[in-house]
Amino acid sequence: MFITNPQIEEYLKSLPKEKDPILEEMENLGHKLNFPIVDKLVGRFLYLITKLKNPQLIVEVGSGFGYSAYWFAKALNKGKVVLTEYREENINLAKKFFERGNLIDKADFRLGDGIEIASEYKNIDILFLDLEKRRYKEAIEKLLPNLSSNALIIADNVLWHGKVVEEEIDNQTKAIKEFNEFMFSLPNFFSVMIPLRDGVLVSLKE
Amino acid sequence: MFITNPQIEEYLKSLPKEKDPILEEMENLGHKLNFPIVDKLVGRFLYLITKLKNPQLIVEVGSGFGYSAYWFAKALNKGKVVLTEYREENINLAKKFFERGNLIDKADFRLGDGIEIASEYKNIDILFLDLEKRRYKEAIEKLLPNLSSNALIIADNVLWHGKVVEEEIDNQTKAIKEFNEFMFSLPNFFSVMIPLRDGVLVSLKE
Repeated sequence: MFITNPQIEEYLKSLPKEKDPILEEMENLGHKLNFPIVDKLVGRFLYLITKLKNPQLIVEVGSGFGYSAYWFAKALNKGKVVLTEYREENINLAKKFFERGNLIDKADFRLGDGIEIASEYKNIDILFLDLEKRRYKEAIEKLLPNLSSNALIIADNVLWHGKVVEEEIDNQTKAIKEFNEFMFSLPNFFSVMIPLRDGVLVSLKE
Repeated sequence: MFITNPQIEEYLKSLPKEKDPILEEMENLGHKLNFPIVDKLVGRFLYLITKLKNPQLIVEVGSGFGYSAYWFAKALNKGKVVLTEYREENINLAKKFFERGNLIDKADFRLGDGIEIASEYKNIDILFLDLEKRRYKEAIEKLLPNLSSNALIIADNVLWHGKVVEEEIDNQTKAIKEFNEFMFSLPNFFSVMIPLRDGVLVSLKE
């Protein structure tokens, strides 16, 4: 089961010419550790969306070692990105990458439960979800009051390896499907799902 | 050859709940006439991008009977969208749809060569390309001076039914591939290709 034709995906990956040695190092680390990162195509998409949105505050729920946050930080004009992560070794790795990339002043690094930490912030302009798939809906329900008036919610893995269209589905897939239906029914939000890599949901508060 | 797994594409189409009777009528007309429109998924993506960009001036090069322009107009706050089309019956159809949807004040309808007409405008915030595929690059080369400082270029059909990855390619496919390479090499532009329907290129002037 694939989402995008693999040949097309290769073509998409072949087009960008810009090189960022730190992002490449992070990509290599992700592949080496088999650690799920959003990867280049989604990273570039996040960068574009952030440039258009020009946010003051981005909060990530689930940052890993900081790959998506690095793209967000690169796109920030003013403002900052808050990384949350429950594994100390990941957050320390992220800090080092941000230091080397001169992006450390654009980021806060927080260790602990992403939803709990995110709920400390008000007026979140971009809320990025990349936590346990079973907790996506919980994250939105808890954090809706913390969003700014034209906030964006961006969620990764919403096509869940294509399992959302399979007949027999596990609990994680069920949770993702419920989350997707929930987001597309949420009053005052306009949602678009992009079939980049594992699926990205973008929901704009109107 | 498909770009996105057809089951996934069906899933993506099943999610949105909003109904717009005029857009549905336009979609039905497109399917009935076998007239290439960007269709719902790309239309929604254009709406999202336009909401984020908040442009004053959108110029379309190649409008058909106005389906993509209708999504642009719906998303406009202030500002307007210029439709260009060389077939009078299409531009008249577009006018009628916009009148019925109360969007007529947000649009200019221009009959003639899209590139020529677009070159009359300055400070274009979003330039949308959906003309003959062999003329995409020509359009950019002529219209770069007419773009505003943070303009977006959006081009449809950049994966051209997936033909961009085939070994033996026709002249149209060759032209699209050259255009894609050109856009990803264009100084001061950051480009992202989205595998929605037939492929959408979004390039941001930085």
